[in-house]
Amino acid sequence: MKRRPQITKGTPSVGSFMKKPHANAFHKAGVDKSTSKPVTATKRIFRQPTPELVQIYGYHAVYAALTARRRKLLDLYATDNSLARIKEIAAAAGLSPKLVDIHELSAHLGEDVVHQGLLLETRPLPEADIADITHNYGIVLVLDQITDPHNVGSILRTSCGFGVDAIVVTERHSPAMAGVLAKTASGALEHVTIVRVVNIARSLDQLREAGYMIVGLDSEGENSLQSLNLIQPITLVLGAEGKGLRRLTRERCDTIARLELAGPIKSLNVSNACAAALSLINYRLNKNPKV
Amino acid sequence: MKRRPQITKGTPSVGSFMKKPHANAFHKAGVDKSTSKPVTATKRIFRQPTPELVQIYGYHAVYAALTARRRKLLDLYATDNSLARIKEIAAAAGLSPKLVDIHELSAHLGEDVVHQGLLLETRPLPEADIADITHNYGIVLVLDQITDPHNVGSILRTSCGFGVDAIVVTERHSPAMAGVLAKTASGALEHVTIVRVVNIARSLDQLREAGYMIVGLDSEGENSLQSLNLIQPITLVLGAEGKGLRRLTRERCDTIARLELAGPIKSLNVSNACAAALSLINYRLNKNPKV
Repeated sequence: MKRRPQITKGTPSVGSFMKKPHANAFHKAGVDKSTSKPVTATKRIFRQPTPELVQIYGYHAVYAALTARRRKLLDLYATDNSLARIKEIAAAAGLSPKLVDIHELSAHLGEDVVHQGLLLETRPLPEADIADITHNYGIVLVLDQITDPHNVGSILRTSCGFGVDAIVVTERHSPAMAGVLAKTASGALEHVTIVRVVNIARSLDQLREAGYMIVGLDSEGENSLQSLNLIQPITLVLGAEGKGLRRLTRERCDTIARLELAGPIKSLNVSNACAAALSLINYRLNKNPKV
Repeated sequence: MKRRPQITKGTPSVGSFMKKPHANAFHKAGVDKSTSKPVTATKRIFRQPTPELVQIYGYHAVYAALTARRRKLLDLYATDNSLARIKEIAAAAGLSPKLVDIHELSAHLGEDVVHQGLLLETRPLPEADIADITHNYGIVLVLDQITDPHNVGSILRTSCGFGVDAIVVTERHSPAMAGVLAKTASGALEHVTIVRVVNIARSLDQLREAGYMIVGLDSEGENSLQSLNLIQPITLVLGAEGKGLRRLTRERCDTIARLELAGPIKSLNVSNACAAALSLINYRLNKNPKV
């Protein structure tokens, strides 16, 4: 494979880096494990993400992945400006960052991506099962085919803040736990337990058998979350904006509750609805969250 | 001014529509008030937004602007596919939608903009003053230089849901109350009272004099919002993500409170923090929100 060495700095060519990277060529050219000296930026050929090769970018997301130690880390790329900020953390995690040109990074990740000069290539986080959920705070979140990575990233961050024990997502119609989702989650992806399931309805049955009260959230719900009698542990089920909870999901809920809203708008963005609901549940269940 | 009539449908030329539109040429060519017949898409020349010419796009945002009747409406553009959905509402508001090509609309608004085939040109909403705030639910929100239009749009939507009486923003370093903010607010922009001020500190003094308790939100706040003694009416002050509340703003707050978070993440996205805080305040203050 012949490489194209020249880049015009101001107008990086996306095509030359994004099309058909060749793994062998990459290992020969870009990542020489025998030396820790960064190769020159113009020679870098990035690998493309796959389910087994996850891209994490942005400072908080990369920082959390390096420090949480839940992943197998592969390579870290940093621009000149970002290097100093991450160097020590990277060294502690056993990685020596490879210097990369900012235009090249943007050409690889997309010009609109806020990578903050950092890209980490890692293996995905270990998968968990419903049975693995550690009963700590007594709240589990189930996302019924919420596809928007910004929303799911925000939900991860908020859930992590409120100490949610696990987030159950569908195998299909869920965003990749990487990239923009990880960036939006701002480090939370490393801390939450994600359970990926084929069948949400079956998972809700399992959770009910494990003693969970199952509450579906819907702006047209029959009960108000503010006045509903809440029992811990609790599972909160959220549907995609617009579509809401699917019929089979809805049928497995013990109750469908709405956030009681006083104003003229009766439905919130799903990540905001999640924050409002978790805040309320957390407050109502206990002021001392350990159960 | 000579117009360029030809467009290649697949690759719309941004330049020919975005550069220096000429108001007179537009009125001659694009919007003939004497006939209600839509002109052909290829002849459309859009006006550029100004403080006095606001662009609203997306179904919910346009629908709310047409039905809330708080603005002076100018022109409505709709694609073939969106026309049927909006026609009646538009007619009730005294507008006849002008047919527009979807590629042209995208070229005008930006290729990434989710306009859903609808663009409304209107005058801005009437401005309000601190003294105009109607004491209805007893909650006022103050945004201290939050610049991201997605965040402010989400905050508007959530605030509108929780019946916030008014949102105070800074004259500078606040996003335009239009476009992507209006789209994210999903119609809420038409319902909330926005007060635009030069000096937040002075406004907080005015609100305190009017009897409001002033609570600044900060992840490092001295008190927890969950346990703080809340007094109605209340003003909640939010700072920009990263920067937080400015010193002068912070000094005018009666107290700085944090959301008590149990998990490893101690700071939320500002729109999620707002949702969590409003949900909590709303619940704690009253189950019957009218005061």
